[in-house]
Amino acid sequence: MTDSTITSPAAPAPVAAEADPAAPVVGPAGDAPQQPSGMPIHKYLPFDEQIRVELPDRTWPARRITRAPRWCAVDLRDGNQALIDPMNSERKLRMFELLVRMGYKEIEVGFPSASRTDYDFVRALIEEDRIPEDVTIQVLTQSREHLIERTYEAIAGAHRAVVHLYNSTSVVQRDVVFRADEDAVLDIAVQGALLCKKYEETVPETAVTYQYSPESYTGTELEYALRVCNAVIEVFQPTPQNKMIINLPATVEMATPNVYADSIEWMHRHLDRRDSLVLSLHPHNDRGTGVAAAELGYLAGADRIEGCLFGNGERTGNVDLVTLGLNLFSQGIDPQIDFSDLGEVRRTVEHCNQMPVPERSPYGGDLVFTAFSGSHQDAIKKGLERMEVDAEKVGKEIDDMVWRVPYLPVDPKDLGRSYEAVIRVNSQSGKGGMAYLLRTEHGLDLPRRLQIEFSGIVQQKTDADGGEVSPETLWDAFTDEYLPSPEEDRRWGRFGFRDVRQESTGEGADRITVTLVVDGEEHEVTGIGNGPLDGFVKALAERKIDVRILDYAEHALTEGDDSLAASYVECEIGDRIFWGVGIDGSITRASLEAIISALNREQRARG
Amino acid sequence: MTDSTITSPAAPAPVAAEADPAAPVVGPAGDAPQQPSGMPIHKYLPFDEQIRVELPDRTWPARRITRAPRWCAVDLRDGNQALIDPMNSERKLRMFELLVRMGYKEIEVGFPSASRTDYDFVRALIEEDRIPEDVTIQVLTQSREHLIERTYEAIAGAHRAVVHLYNSTSVVQRDVVFRADEDAVLDIAVQGALLCKKYEETVPETAVTYQYSPESYTGTELEYALRVCNAVIEVFQPTPQNKMIINLPATVEMATPNVYADSIEWMHRHLDRRDSLVLSLHPHNDRGTGVAAAELGYLAGADRIEGCLFGNGERTGNVDLVTLGLNLFSQGIDPQIDFSDLGEVRRTVEHCNQMPVPERSPYGGDLVFTAFSGSHQDAIKKGLERMEVDAEKVGKEIDDMVWRVPYLPVDPKDLGRSYEAVIRVNSQSGKGGMAYLLRTEHGLDLPRRLQIEFSGIVQQKTDADGGEVSPETLWDAFTDEYLPSPEEDRRWGRFGFRDVRQESTGEGADRITVTLVVDGEEHEVTGIGNGPLDGFVKALAERKIDVRILDYAEHALTEGDDSLAASYVECEIGDRIFWGVGIDGSITRASLEAIISALNREQRARG
Repeated sequence: MTDSTITSPAAPAPVAAEADPAAPVVGPAGDAPQQPSGMPIHKYLPFDEQIRVELPDRTWPARRITRAPRWCAVDLRDGNQALIDPMNSERKLRMFELLVRMGYKEIEVGFPSASRTDYDFVRALIEEDRIPEDVTIQVLTQSREHLIERTYEAIAGAHRAVVHLYNSTSVVQRDVVFRADEDAVLDIAVQGALLCKKYEETVPETAVTYQYSPESYTGTELEYALRVCNAVIEVFQPTPQNKMIINLPATVEMATPNVYADSIEWMHRHLDRRDSLVLSLHPHNDRGTGVAAAELGYLAGADRIEGCLFGNGERTGNVDLVTLGLNLFSQGIDPQIDFSDLGEVRRTVEHCNQMPVPERSPYGGDLVFTAFSGSHQDAIKKGLERMEVDAEKVGKEIDDMVWRVPYLPVDPKDLGRSYEAVIRVNSQSGKGGMAYLLRTEHGLDLPRRLQIEFSGIVQQKTDADGGEVSPETLWDAFTDEYLPSPEEDRRWGRFGFRDVRQESTGEGADRITVTLVVDGEEHEVTGIGNGPLDGFVKALAERKIDVRILDYAEHALTEGDDSLAASYVECEIGDRIFWGVGIDGSITRASLEAIISALNREQRARG
Repeated sequence: MTDSTITSPAAPAPVAAEADPAAPVVGPAGDAPQQPSGMPIHKYLPFDEQIRVELPDRTWPARRITRAPRWCAVDLRDGNQALIDPMNSERKLRMFELLVRMGYKEIEVGFPSASRTDYDFVRALIEEDRIPEDVTIQVLTQSREHLIERTYEAIAGAHRAVVHLYNSTSVVQRDVVFRADEDAVLDIAVQGALLCKKYEETVPETAVTYQYSPESYTGTELEYALRVCNAVIEVFQPTPQNKMIINLPATVEMATPNVYADSIEWMHRHLDRRDSLVLSLHPHNDRGTGVAAAELGYLAGADRIEGCLFGNGERTGNVDLVTLGLNLFSQGIDPQIDFSDLGEVRRTVEHCNQMPVPERSPYGGDLVFTAFSGSHQDAIKKGLERMEVDAEKVGKEIDDMVWRVPYLPVDPKDLGRSYEAVIRVNSQSGKGGMAYLLRTEHGLDLPRRLQIEFSGIVQQKTDADGGEVSPETLWDAFTDEYLPSPEEDRRWGRFGFRDVRQESTGEGADRITVTLVVDGEEHEVTGIGNGPLDGFVKALAERKIDVRILDYAEHALTEGDDSLAASYVECEIGDRIFWGVGIDGSITRASLEAIISALNREQRARG
């Protein structure tokens, strides 16, 4: 093995960019007619002219991942600080409890010295005894005495805590923000570590683990990052029995992920007391390669990964813990995190973050288990059929067989999801989408998951009837499935309602009284809730009708009669999910009709 | 250099999965209390037990990217086939023209033998002479005679075209879909190639380039993929002057991106007639590492990358061409694609795909140039100030300086965007977001970009006034900025309106007549458009008031008086963008008020 070498150029002095020479640009194959774009590339230095990372004897590309890293979820800190609507205490607690339920054992719960909410939240977790015995909370602090002091006040009484000390070490931040040289910035870290040791004495009942982050690590010369980390390690004196965490954040992702991996392997080899350290990664996603950086960095010798569910976080987000965990799962490696009800995870995250999970987000997005192309659908069908045949051959259940279905990397059922083959209404017309037709012909703008649900229904109906799907057939299928028939015949279902009375007392306590019709009999039910939907759900519960609202959307009809409102409600009834639709002149009645629609659909699904 | 070795295990026979032994699981550091999740990992085989990829003497990790690959945009084919609402001809043409304008020179325009719309679209491009001389269209075909014949009918008359032949070659697809052995599946490819040669004679005026894809390449044994590609190459007999394209798709992403790179480097070394080939990548994003796979595969010897803008495509999407291109740009490498008006690119893509670009999508997402944390804002401010000082020192414009600002990997201005520091209303309360306050206190649900715009306005006002921002101050700022003052004083602005008359003749031609007030004088203006907004814009144009509507949202007030509607319109006026807001009992009036609001804001911004 040759010795690894690493050199870092001096911090670049501020320089004017050089004008781009107007040399002709040829594509790599020498025959592409691509032209210069005229974009101001002269403003940007390649990463390797800023920070040198060289490791010719790297070993990580030949390794493979065989078990889960130690995870740390930072949704409540890094994730939360990047929200337009930061979490209030209700949402914080829901996020914390979700993370605990999923199996995360290290959870960064806030930056208590910088924010009163964070401080109060940490205190509430401790004082209300909400931290399970095997879960460790982590708190972030800058390296300043009053903040460190306050941090220890925040964790007092916890059985265990990780105190996470950071300061920024990059070339640019030293120069621009601190206006300090290498030694002075190193001293910020060392002084912080000494202060941590000092204030640790104020929390004798708490087992403190230390974590140090050279923030903006990816913009820091490697030898300097090493020097700072080793100086901090020297203060904390970790041992194999009492380790500390060294966390190397890609605060801003600055190069391809193999470069991050090289840098991690280099640090892994050179850090003092490596057997007394937990080497941790904290990738962001500025170049869209946060997941790769985490995986390659883990191959390169790291032990632990910090990230957020569905990749929330500053700018382009922290690395996505859902993708990382399920990437392991798809390889037969236990993520040690429970993703078996990914829909519930997603709904909770969307509620807490007040941000949607994108349609194409790996594993969790609405469209990732949906096949549109006929050849994909055909291959998936054949794959599923073969699995059944094979299972029968060896006398096993299908769930005991190795999963091998084209275009579906994992069995959606394992995540509590389902596969949907979406049909085209009329692929010849160029207006193939059902969504398009419902919108342009009927003014309805269906939420994405309802579109997918309805597509499956159309598929069933057309498989049964044979023949092509015309716009008329489609509309009949929609009204038959979701809307009461005009004749109010029995076909529509058990449930209906007549009068609705609402009283709003303010403060989220609306009283709603509804004349509910069940099997033709009228019952007056009353509920108090946060708005009419919530009130109606409570009122239904009175009659032992249990519905949970998962999602909700509403709009005025976009075309045609705009005095009508359409309402869509995603309901959990029993352990199944049904959408309901209501259309009415009153927004309130449309919403209640949507719930009734879901209830009637559930009844029919049983029948 | 040791010789590279590669072995592929035989196709696994269908096997029952083994139950997971209940061995205790320990984290890598041996001290994490993470527990087994109970998820059915026994169903999944690690990738390296399916396909062996070994390349100990790989060279790609030591390379770095120095110029742009040859790009091929497949939005109109792979992207389009994954849409709930596939593009109609209007949207297809807009996408094609966008791609051409940005600088893409190879554009896969469809699968004409599989879809009448695609066929008609290709014919229209050719017959209406819409393909610039330096742009080559690409069409996909399966390896079946009637489809190949139809493909050549589709391209007849084009000056140049890439005919893209594919068949699936993976272990699973051979077994489950084709029920054919290696030789039989190879023969599908060879026969297809021979048929292409045959039908090429029917288009003597078209210079045809060939592309072959072993579809589901990532699930194919490498030696077999090589054998199939070489057999096809043997048929087409490419030369250095007349190359063919070999495209290796990660149809489903199945392993970490370094494994894909190893496989590409292996193919790059072993393919026959390498100097007569363009080696192309086609990554998907099932594991969230499509961008990394493209970048590492490019390092490994590929010449060309196929992808879609903002990563649209089947399931988790094709690799994102915007991220790939701007990753190059951030390193001072010309992407040879013009991203200087990324907002316009994004709006067009959202219109064509009828899907939103996620908030955290690299470079293009709403939140990627937004800083929430005080320390980030401070560092960015110092970085920007320093750049000004440095520019002055060397007597240059700031745009001639090397960009070095913490937390902003590129200058948002270079993409036609701006940096926003989002302030917290009251970080102590846990209801820090302005959006939260406007929603809960006033029933307004602001679109994300309006939230960001308004945040910048609050920031300016508070920087000017000093002191903290109370909810009252916030609401005053909002009404002062966006809504007419109750007293109808002059402060609100030049523009207003009184009466509105609408006549709808159906077929997207609504006539709207508005009594417009300009500087206190009334003018009756009329416009015909697709709905009242479009009609009003046309009516304004009559008075030389030019407004372009970029985005639009509307809702009933969520709390309080739900007989009111709120309307938000993003307008381009001159070369600047302004949001306007209208609140009214009538949806139509609210929309017109929103446009008036934007117009008045633009006037004030000039003053």
